[in-house]
Amino acid sequence: MPEFLHLVPPSEALTRLLDNFHPTLEIEEIATIEALGRVSAEPVNAPHPLPSFPRATHDGYAVRAEDTYGASESLPAYLKVIGEILMGSAPQAAIKAGECLLIHTGGMLPEGANAVVMLEYTQAVKNTNEIEVLRPAAIGENVIKVGEDVVAGQEVISPGRRLRAAEIGGAAALGITRLKVFRQPRIALISTGDEVVPPDQTIQPGQVRDVNTYTLSALISENGGIPLSYGILPDNAQVLAETAGKALEACDGLIITAGSSASARDLTSEIIQQLGSPGVLVHGINIRPGKPTILGVCRQAGKSDKPVIGLPGNPVSALVIATLFVKPILRLLNGLPAVPPQPVIRAKLTVNLPSEAGREDWAPVRLVETAEGYLAEPVFGKSNLIFTLVRADGLVRIPMDANGVSAESIVEVFPL
Amino acid sequence: MPEFLHLVPPSEALTRLLDNFHPTLEIEEIATIEALGRVSAEPVNAPHPLPSFPRATHDGYAVRAEDTYGASESLPAYLKVIGEILMGSAPQAAIKAGECLLIHTGGMLPEGANAVVMLEYTQAVKNTNEIEVLRPAAIGENVIKVGEDVVAGQEVISPGRRLRAAEIGGAAALGITRLKVFRQPRIALISTGDEVVPPDQTIQPGQVRDVNTYTLSALISENGGIPLSYGILPDNAQVLAETAGKALEACDGLIITAGSSASARDLTSEIIQQLGSPGVLVHGINIRPGKPTILGVCRQAGKSDKPVIGLPGNPVSALVIATLFVKPILRLLNGLPAVPPQPVIRAKLTVNLPSEAGREDWAPVRLVETAEGYLAEPVFGKSNLIFTLVRADGLVRIPMDANGVSAESIVEVFPL
Repeated sequence: MPEFLHLVPPSEALTRLLDNFHPTLEIEEIATIEALGRVSAEPVNAPHPLPSFPRATHDGYAVRAEDTYGASESLPAYLKVIGEILMGSAPQAAIKAGECLLIHTGGMLPEGANAVVMLEYTQAVKNTNEIEVLRPAAIGENVIKVGEDVVAGQEVISPGRRLRAAEIGGAAALGITRLKVFRQPRIALISTGDEVVPPDQTIQPGQVRDVNTYTLSALISENGGIPLSYGILPDNAQVLAETAGKALEACDGLIITAGSSASARDLTSEIIQQLGSPGVLVHGINIRPGKPTILGVCRQAGKSDKPVIGLPGNPVSALVIATLFVKPILRLLNGLPAVPPQPVIRAKLTVNLPSEAGREDWAPVRLVETAEGYLAEPVFGKSNLIFTLVRADGLVRIPMDANGVSAESIVEVFPL
Repeated sequence: MPEFLHLVPPSEALTRLLDNFHPTLEIEEIATIEALGRVSAEPVNAPHPLPSFPRATHDGYAVRAEDTYGASESLPAYLKVIGEILMGSAPQAAIKAGECLLIHTGGMLPEGANAVVMLEYTQAVKNTNEIEVLRPAAIGENVIKVGEDVVAGQEVISPGRRLRAAEIGGAAALGITRLKVFRQPRIALISTGDEVVPPDQTIQPGQVRDVNTYTLSALISENGGIPLSYGILPDNAQVLAETAGKALEACDGLIITAGSSASARDLTSEIIQQLGSPGVLVHGINIRPGKPTILGVCRQAGKSDKPVIGLPGNPVSALVIATLFVKPILRLLNGLPAVPPQPVIRAKLTVNLPSEAGREDWAPVRLVETAEGYLAEPVFGKSNLIFTLVRADGLVRIPMDANGVSAESIVEVFPL
């Protein structure tokens, strides 16, 4: 029985998937120091201003600016040093006209002071407790005011923001040691195919090892998900349906890598159709590698939308298609906007890269850095050889309406 | 006592650090499926060819190519179907002249066959076990030969390679379920400063929370290291020396964020000097933010070189300097070449960005995507406000010899 594919262009396939996928995300509270890479689930507001007291930005003397006006090297202002402000403490005294206090970077300004004169613009007067100020200080000079970084109540982290070192540090500065973030999505993986055996097994003639559980686990992990393997299943409708149902019940999404045969792929399609509505959205994409891809969303009463993706069994196709279609889904499940993959490297193609018009091609390339920028060297080889991807740094897209890309063209490389 | 800094340009500071740092890396063996992002420590060679048997790349019939020569729709070649090759099994029979076997994508070619005719170029002859072949097949057509992906003994993963999904999948395909990788470096963190309190504590006037342990832990984690906090220490020489010694004994590197005062920084410098030779390499960098940075390497008899870095206590300075100087060190400790940070986004500056000539400035910017490309909007604010970094997407470098960068200039943005 020949396979029945309705090929759709890649962009339409992604649109159909995203238009039908509106998950309800769960929120959890975690320690701020563990929150790197997670996505904030609610606005974080400053419980108090930052800094919470006026601070010196240099080592020097806390002064009343007006006491220094007109000061110069030839006509210094004389101020009486009434003490030192210790780090971590409130000043012991306020200053009055003609007085100053020694202050260190980050120290708290005393009452009465409105500026800091840098140490290098002062000179001690021998055998007295006085200093000469050699330059005038403006009001606010070398001082960070209360709330200059953030004011009390200000939203400092917006929901939907991926937390980097800066956000984690900002939260710590405000004493926020726990944060509400979206729960990481659990993605179930099922490999099918009578020829597929676990990687730790010796292969017999006709058998191949399960590569997809390894590559897809890596892809899911590096995109904020938690991969869960449900094993390698034979091409058997009942076993597959049962395991797929169990996996989808326990997880937020399911990826089935179909056996290589057309009948195995039809089986996957039928099972997705049974797992919930709307079921199969796309069966076949006008792309190489990865044509026999199945994209589906399964909604069950009282549950969140869950994506169920049927990937080609071939490891290269599976990894390329996962990069293009599973990554945006993982972004959505993490609480981020789904954006298609972004090229980040522009490079000059070294040789012609042929392709068939009417189909989008993704070709593996190696990047070579030169003084004039990057060169993209195509990694030739049949599209189903996993080590072509090992040799590649990224993929170049050849649009559907092109008959390939000529040597010397500038191409955009999507890193692998 | 004023601080004694010998300011060196940032590029020279990095060179001095790297020239003096030659760590001996430890190797460990881990499960391949856990190896994402780790760096291979020895060459991986293919234990057998891949594929290990000749495979069909399409559904069709395994044939002798010569039996199909001259075949056309009007004059098809007739072949006798002697059976089917089951997935995962060696073929039950060899084929002889005039015979063929039904084969599925990924199936093993039988003896005697040297090509696969695609299903769509054949037609069953009713009530017989014969097919019509409507197109000739060339030798090797729709077949992947043994060793076409890799040959036995070939080096498939080089040492020093960061392991991505592709490498992990490639190893799985070869049955390599454990890999030798470099051990992740453990980096000790010490915060100092009498004014610094843990983030979970209520702050009193003059006190600030420890931000650096949070931001640096995040930076270390996202660059392949394991951060270990040794707490917040008072500005006390003996306590600091003892803890620093213990930390460096147990870890592969140490970062001390110095209290804000000059004397606290001098203390850090003395302690680095005592921890091993060559000790302090750079004390003061011509950069903003981050001028009072200390870079050191401490070598002890029979031990590997260990970096000891004294960062400014200010969280913004600490994070910027860590990005520029700690990241390359972490790359080396992971087994990768140390490369300075790479800009990845080119953007047009929206307004003038002033700076002082004679000093390298790093200015935070926000990126705005437009149809014409990215705009870089400077995030103004004093350089010691942590939330300027929260509002920023990256940093723009203003070279030492420039008096700032003009609006409309194209700048390179280093992502934060």
